[in-house]
Amino acid sequence: MKKHTLSVTVENKPGVLARVTTVIRRRGYNIESLTVGQTENPSISRITLVVTGDDPIIEQVTKQLYKLVDVIKIVDITEERSVERELVLVKVKADTSVRGEIVQIVDIFRGRIVDIGRSSLIVEATGDSSKIDAIEEALSPFGIIELVRTGKVAMVRGGK
Amino acid sequence: MKKHTLSVTVENKPGVLARVTTVIRRRGYNIESLTVGQTENPSISRITLVVTGDDPIIEQVTKQLYKLVDVIKIVDITEERSVERELVLVKVKADTSVRGEIVQIVDIFRGRIVDIGRSSLIVEATGDSSKIDAIEEALSPFGIIELVRTGKVAMVRGGK
Repeated sequence: MKKHTLSVTVENKPGVLARVTTVIRRRGYNIESLTVGQTENPSISRITLVVTGDDPIIEQVTKQLYKLVDVIKIVDITEERSVERELVLVKVKADTSVRGEIVQIVDIFRGRIVDIGRSSLIVEATGDSSKIDAIEEALSPFGIIELVRTGKVAMVRGGK
Repeated sequence: MKKHTLSVTVENKPGVLARVTTVIRRRGYNIESLTVGQTENPSISRITLVVTGDDPIIEQVTKQLYKLVDVIKIVDITEERSVERELVLVKVKADTSVRGEIVQIVDIFRGRIVDIGRSSLIVEATGDSSKIDAIEEALSPFGIIELVRTGKVAMVRGGK
């Protein structure tokens, strides 16, 4: 079993996301993360999927997805030289006695503090999945109140 | 018509995303962005949806979603004091003559250059949607080759 990152370019039409997720669901594949967002072209969206499965399974998913009329292009980014990024927001317990320590950790990970509450901070950080895991681990001793990750987006490096 | 950001906490089970998007699809609502990612609890995921609609429509969506057995909690973050963040990757045309100018723009937006190709750069930036729109606009004169946004995640400020 291997993780695959699929970049699926679709027409920005109502229902396309439901159709894509239904195809994957019917085949029983496991979606680890999914993002859908705008692209440089307002009529086109890009869905980035992280799916776990063997290579033949991924081939099947790809074939099934291509049958959907609104799917324009599918790239399995796993095999490409690519930039992969995810964003995380972490609300962490932080009374004044530990704030300095937390700020240091955030600096090391090149994160940012985006909100200060009476007894908590919200930290923003970006990176590949392993970096996000690492920052989560570094902050967890302080007490994580809430954590949300966007899921991964990816882009092939260099020229098209 | 108004944009609403819904934070939907769900059991991390196969098919839950397909069920959520199908409910929204059936009602004919328009999803502007969607992210689903991990939380502080491995058995729980969080879906952040940006939906366009009038208040009564959003209420209906919320009711329908609560009927799904895997939906734990729905918060309409629109009305809350919150931190909203999105990540964008932009591949922009950049021969050596304009690189300096692009680097300046990226600095102004507190972005980062995450890849340098022969004639292009990949820029990473985070912010609320209007900031992401602004960086897109600032880079577009150079020629945007590819752009992908994660869609929004959001977190209520301060204590729980």
